[in-house]
Amino acid sequence: MTDEARARWHEQLQNALDEAAAGKPERLCAKIADLDGSALADVLEALDSEPRLVLWNNITAQRRGQVLVESHGEVRRGLIEATDAQTLADAVQGLDLDDLSDIDADLPPEVLRSVLERMPQERRQRFDALRVYPDDCAGGLMDADPVSVRPDADVASAAATLRRHREQQGALPEHLHALMVTDDSGRYLGMVELADLLVNDGDRPVREVMTRQDQALPVDLSAADVARRFEDHNLLSAAVVDDAGRLIGRITVDDVVDVLRAQAERSQLANTGLDNETDTFAPTLVASRRRAVWLGVNLVNALIAAAIISLFDETIDQLVALAVLMPVVASMGGVAGTQSMALVIRAIALDQVHGSTRWRLLRRELAVGGLNGLLWALVVAAVALAWFGNPALSAVFATAVILNLMMGVFAGTGIPMLLSRLGVDPALAGGVVLVALTDAVGFGVFLGLGSLLLI
Amino acid sequence: MTDEARARWHEQLQNALDEAAAGKPERLCAKIADLDGSALADVLEALDSEPRLVLWNNITAQRRGQVLVESHGEVRRGLIEATDAQTLADAVQGLDLDDLSDIDADLPPEVLRSVLERMPQERRQRFDALRVYPDDCAGGLMDADPVSVRPDADVASAAATLRRHREQQGALPEHLHALMVTDDSGRYLGMVELADLLVNDGDRPVREVMTRQDQALPVDLSAADVARRFEDHNLLSAAVVDDAGRLIGRITVDDVVDVLRAQAERSQLANTGLDNETDTFAPTLVASRRRAVWLGVNLVNALIAAAIISLFDETIDQLVALAVLMPVVASMGGVAGTQSMALVIRAIALDQVHGSTRWRLLRRELAVGGLNGLLWALVVAAVALAWFGNPALSAVFATAVILNLMMGVFAGTGIPMLLSRLGVDPALAGGVVLVALTDAVGFGVFLGLGSLLLI
Repeated sequence: MTDEARARWHEQLQNALDEAAAGKPERLCAKIADLDGSALADVLEALDSEPRLVLWNNITAQRRGQVLVESHGEVRRGLIEATDAQTLADAVQGLDLDDLSDIDADLPPEVLRSVLERMPQERRQRFDALRVYPDDCAGGLMDADPVSVRPDADVASAAATLRRHREQQGALPEHLHALMVTDDSGRYLGMVELADLLVNDGDRPVREVMTRQDQALPVDLSAADVARRFEDHNLLSAAVVDDAGRLIGRITVDDVVDVLRAQAERSQLANTGLDNETDTFAPTLVASRRRAVWLGVNLVNALIAAAIISLFDETIDQLVALAVLMPVVASMGGVAGTQSMALVIRAIALDQVHGSTRWRLLRRELAVGGLNGLLWALVVAAVALAWFGNPALSAVFATAVILNLMMGVFAGTGIPMLLSRLGVDPALAGGVVLVALTDAVGFGVFLGLGSLLLI
Repeated sequence: MTDEARARWHEQLQNALDEAAAGKPERLCAKIADLDGSALADVLEALDSEPRLVLWNNITAQRRGQVLVESHGEVRRGLIEATDAQTLADAVQGLDLDDLSDIDADLPPEVLRSVLERMPQERRQRFDALRVYPDDCAGGLMDADPVSVRPDADVASAAATLRRHREQQGALPEHLHALMVTDDSGRYLGMVELADLLVNDGDRPVREVMTRQDQALPVDLSAADVARRFEDHNLLSAAVVDDAGRLIGRITVDDVVDVLRAQAERSQLANTGLDNETDTFAPTLVASRRRAVWLGVNLVNALIAAAIISLFDETIDQLVALAVLMPVVASMGGVAGTQSMALVIRAIALDQVHGSTRWRLLRRELAVGGLNGLLWALVVAAVALAWFGNPALSAVFATAVILNLMMGVFAGTGIPMLLSRLGVDPALAGGVVLVALTDAVGFGVFLGLGSLLLI
């Protein structure tokens, strides 16, 4: 759709929503009839809270569950809050178990209980097996109960296993491209591609056509590491195994795509105090409250910088040029540090930083900072000389720029390494710490040198 | 691997590299024997340029091609530059065609020519069909020549088609979970899952077991939109069609995972002047040059802010407290604007911003900015009053904070919308424009009000 077509579509939707709010939902229902849960979630998220609820109330129960799964956390919780227990139970009843386990923490306990009570015994057991694991590890991403065959079965009986599975479960598993191969005690041995089952003779043993691969994922592997394995080895699905190597589940790449999308959103919202579950269209008061905290943290930083400046108020009083130039010193350090920090955060995400690499990277960044510091110090010295005609001021300015640039790259390299060793995601708040440091050092060094050498 | 085990592994690698550099490559070769191209690329990228080349020279030709494909652009170009034409041709000869078309622009023309000349006619034609399309659209991501069957074929003959394909090509296509279904003129009709071919009787027509789906991707769809389709509909693969709806290729989800990873890396490196092809471990001089440009852009911004401050140097001379507090005004506007900008960039990426949504979002952000402005203006006024005991100064400070916060959210909302309408990725440089504005307005409004009302 072009941008115009899209705008027109949304205008029509707006009109249909107004009609539905006035008690005539026919046009709205017709308009959204073709959209699946994922597309509906996208449309819902871009509405304000009132029309959002009008739309939600006109979605069929069957698609409502998928909308909850596909929505960002804050949006989902808003919808759940506005919906009665019976409607919610109907909505989530038919969800895939791995989807249900992604949202179960947001459901009211009595809704979850009634859904669990109505589950067939076997489904209930699989769900309980999934719920044990936190959402952000292999166990939380996997679907339990993968279809598996023995290595000494032949190709024809492997196909029969799949047929039996369809009869028992009523449907084939989604996204199936391979069957798992396990030994008699359930230990994972490898996979056999469905394509290989199709092209090989029925009496060949699975052993001869299977792929033995060591890409089985430990159940407690972090979601980020799972994603990296899928990327590095171009996997479509992978086996999840317990400590003893027994097959307990299967992760498919569509779950990994969701992990990557969440990572990208977290990067986009880094250093804003917001997370990837944030509702873009939250009501003003809710949105204001969430952002106020972050502004408050920043205010404390800014006031610390102000306090440092005020230590030198007499110096500034005697040489106002210092006040004019001091933001330049602070910002050059901040920018150089931000460059180092972004590269180091990426290197950590790519798992390139360990052992002696840390020192190698730090040395390299300091060298880069020193070189760029020298270059830009010469430029700023020339600018300041032309501007204020004061060689001593130029020298102090240039020195402060070099020092703060070095400080910036040092902190930009060290802070993310330190945070990640402490188990904190450096992308979330590293930038705030960095800027607080480069501001404080930038103002302090420049004004301090000025008060020593120029007054 | 634990962090310690990983550090030990890298230490051993370092020793093996030193030995190899001294002419004894046996230990190095043993150490890397088990690693595939992707893992080797990861290891290579975390080395400095000299050991990187030692490692590269000890990799077997067969894996070298994959290493080139998996490396970031700058690393890849460095390896290519250091390698003679014959070695390069051997390395890339056996690559999958979609991989080869990802890196062909980086290969020396004579190497590419010799590789193309040695290709069998049929492979050469498929490659030429792929090369027509830019890398960042559906055509650039797809693999040409998907396996397709007719809807009136039966299940057994569909399996036979796959068997024939294996005989002709020597292998099955990677990641195959479904065959494409096309009509006699090659128009795309849907897919038939391999699982359905396995569980259904051989004489059922494909028509009855296929999935008719409208998720065919136009060949010129952007890579970002391709990724969103895969995410929204949990696809493993999708058909690529031309204007007439004819099937011309197939995109698998592993290519989409690479697109998402590149997006995440671009977000991480936003506002640093670096892109996702940057070599983290580039030599100091190369790294310095790349970053210097960005520091220069920032210096211009900072000097503009300094020039605005210098307009008011007499005012500061009379009331030094203005110089102490002015960075607070600038930074509160910058932080509020960064929050708005991050949310709007995410909303644009989620395709939530069009038509009237723009105004709705802008109004909401201004309301949020106004509320938070009022809140923090009261706080800063109280702090300033306690600090300097000057009610008029407090009032000016509070007013400037409100105004700059509003300015921040206005610019933070408007700049990404404007940039994206102009076809520029707002994530790349929006932050720099924003901070330049909030600095200029913050200093200008605060010092301007101060000179009017306080002196």
